[in-house]
Amino acid sequence: MSHPTHDDCIFCKIVAGTIACHKIFEGDGILVMLDIGPLSRGHVLVIPKGHYETLATVPDAVAGACGALLPRLVRALHAVTGTSASNVLQNNGRAAHQAVDHVHFHVIPKPAEGGLGLTWPAGNLDAGDATDLVGQIAGHMG
Amino acid sequence: MSHPTHDDCIFCKIVAGTIACHKIFEGDGILVMLDIGPLSRGHVLVIPKGHYETLATVPDAVAGACGALLPRLVRALHAVTGTSASNVLQNNGRAAHQAVDHVHFHVIPKPAEGGLGLTWPAGNLDAGDATDLVGQIAGHMG
Repeated sequence: MSHPTHDDCIFCKIVAGTIACHKIFEGDGILVMLDIGPLSRGHVLVIPKGHYETLATVPDAVAGACGALLPRLVRALHAVTGTSASNVLQNNGRAAHQAVDHVHFHVIPKPAEGGLGLTWPAGNLDAGDATDLVGQIAGHMG
Repeated sequence: MSHPTHDDCIFCKIVAGTIACHKIFEGDGILVMLDIGPLSRGHVLVIPKGHYETLATVPDAVAGACGALLPRLVRALHAVTGTSASNVLQNNGRAAHQAVDHVHFHVIPKPAEGGLGLTWPAGNLDAGDATDLVGQIAGHMG
């Protein structure tokens, strides 16, 4: 295999075929499967086959391939579950609710009942800090 | 412009330059800016310049370009905000907390206090339904 793997990673074992999954799609370095602890019917995971702990270390091309697959997957989930709403969520780090240390995108249909619960304690952007942030973030973007 | 636009869309006006924003990056059909109602310091939005209401109608290449930008942006936000955790979130439809009908990816640093709030009422995947779902979703994936 040309991608990085980790011996103790459940998603790497799924990719290798030593642990079963409910596989929906495989190709282009990506695997799509049902989440076994769904937040709603049709909750799926998109994972790169390679082992990357968070999105910070995923090669651009791999992240791009994940992104390119999302519109088709969202359409499929909306069609199959009869919903027209959904959330795409990708968590980096335990503090951000990442439970498996192999990067994954959740795609979660949002029916009338259930699905992902969000709380949205929006603040106000401080104009002075905004200028600092833009400069610093843009500087790191290279 | 070669991308679709919508006259009443605030993000299309930002792309056109008739409404100001705190712009971090622009290129490859994409604009990155600070969210003016941040959930945490450094909360940014990644938007395609073209007007697509939800991810379901975004061309694969545009969604791929958004995805490919995410690792670099996550690294930049972690570096600037001093956090090692973050959430990427993309909402489709009012029921899923989409507030502006021009597709956007939130990238939200997760500091010790604040950031995106998630509730995770995980269910259990029914084995029989899983088989049905896999067949149906895969069928729609083409």
